[in-house]
Amino acid sequence: MIQIRKAGKKDYDGIWEIFESVIKTGDTYVFDPRTNKEALSKYWLAPHMKTYVAEEYGKLLGTYIIKPNQTGLGAHVANCSYMVHPNAQGKGIGKKLCEHSLENAKNLGFKAIQFNIVVSTNQAAVNLWKKYGFKIIGTIPKGFNHLTLGYVDAHIMYKEL
Amino acid sequence: MIQIRKAGKKDYDGIWEIFESVIKTGDTYVFDPRTNKEALSKYWLAPHMKTYVAEEYGKLLGTYIIKPNQTGLGAHVANCSYMVHPNAQGKGIGKKLCEHSLENAKNLGFKAIQFNIVVSTNQAAVNLWKKYGFKIIGTIPKGFNHLTLGYVDAHIMYKEL
Repeated sequence: MIQIRKAGKKDYDGIWEIFESVIKTGDTYVFDPRTNKEALSKYWLAPHMKTYVAEEYGKLLGTYIIKPNQTGLGAHVANCSYMVHPNAQGKGIGKKLCEHSLENAKNLGFKAIQFNIVVSTNQAAVNLWKKYGFKIIGTIPKGFNHLTLGYVDAHIMYKEL
Repeated sequence: MIQIRKAGKKDYDGIWEIFESVIKTGDTYVFDPRTNKEALSKYWLAPHMKTYVAEEYGKLLGTYIIKPNQTGLGAHVANCSYMVHPNAQGKGIGKKLCEHSLENAKNLGFKAIQFNIVVSTNQAAVNLWKKYGFKIIGTIPKGFNHLTLGYVDAHIMYKEL
């Protein structure tokens, strides 16, 4: 059974395994495909964010973070990022993480969730977020430097909670 | 004569004077109006940003920062923030800072500049950016918690260089 829970220090290696295998394709996330393990603490386990993991039989299969998208007077809008281990695709983990984050964001007092850079060519992600009520509120022309396609547009997506 | 130059450690107090008087109105910037002086280093003089000041006769009248808006595969788009001391309004300092930043961003190799949260009620700023070729590429519904008006929309503005 897949359980979603808050991440702790002991999860660092498991999260890194997901993170590394997800970013190396350079087609969905802004993180440099050559990011090293030490930098994970800054990108995925920083003090200003909350990190969660999806676990099954002691193995981490997915993870997400939630944080204020802006400081101060913009801090009522959350920002989330989700990753699923490539070997665990098709088990509905992305959906589970998304559902957990929507509930969680609301409980944490956020009024909305905003994604700042959804790669336009990542149609699976765009469709998933739309299914959960996210709308494209803007598009950054050539906002993402895709590893194989070069500069492609990136969407800003938003959902009021 | 107004000169724009890179900021150094000796400028901390002068920048803080601008920063403090600008954010206290809570109607244009996300920074919490109660931000303390120590936090300025994180918001305006952090290692991942470059900070500039507009100086006249040894007095700092304005400042701006430039940084990558995203890490890695989104780092070709810059993000800038500008502040002018309320007592120095009407001297064209905002325009000078904007012009300097456009030239500077290009020289630094950025392909575009993106503003993530331009308060929709700050019509002067919206008009200034439009004059310099920035387009509204998206609007965050109720994205800004205005100190007197409550939640108001915030624009995402973008200009290709």
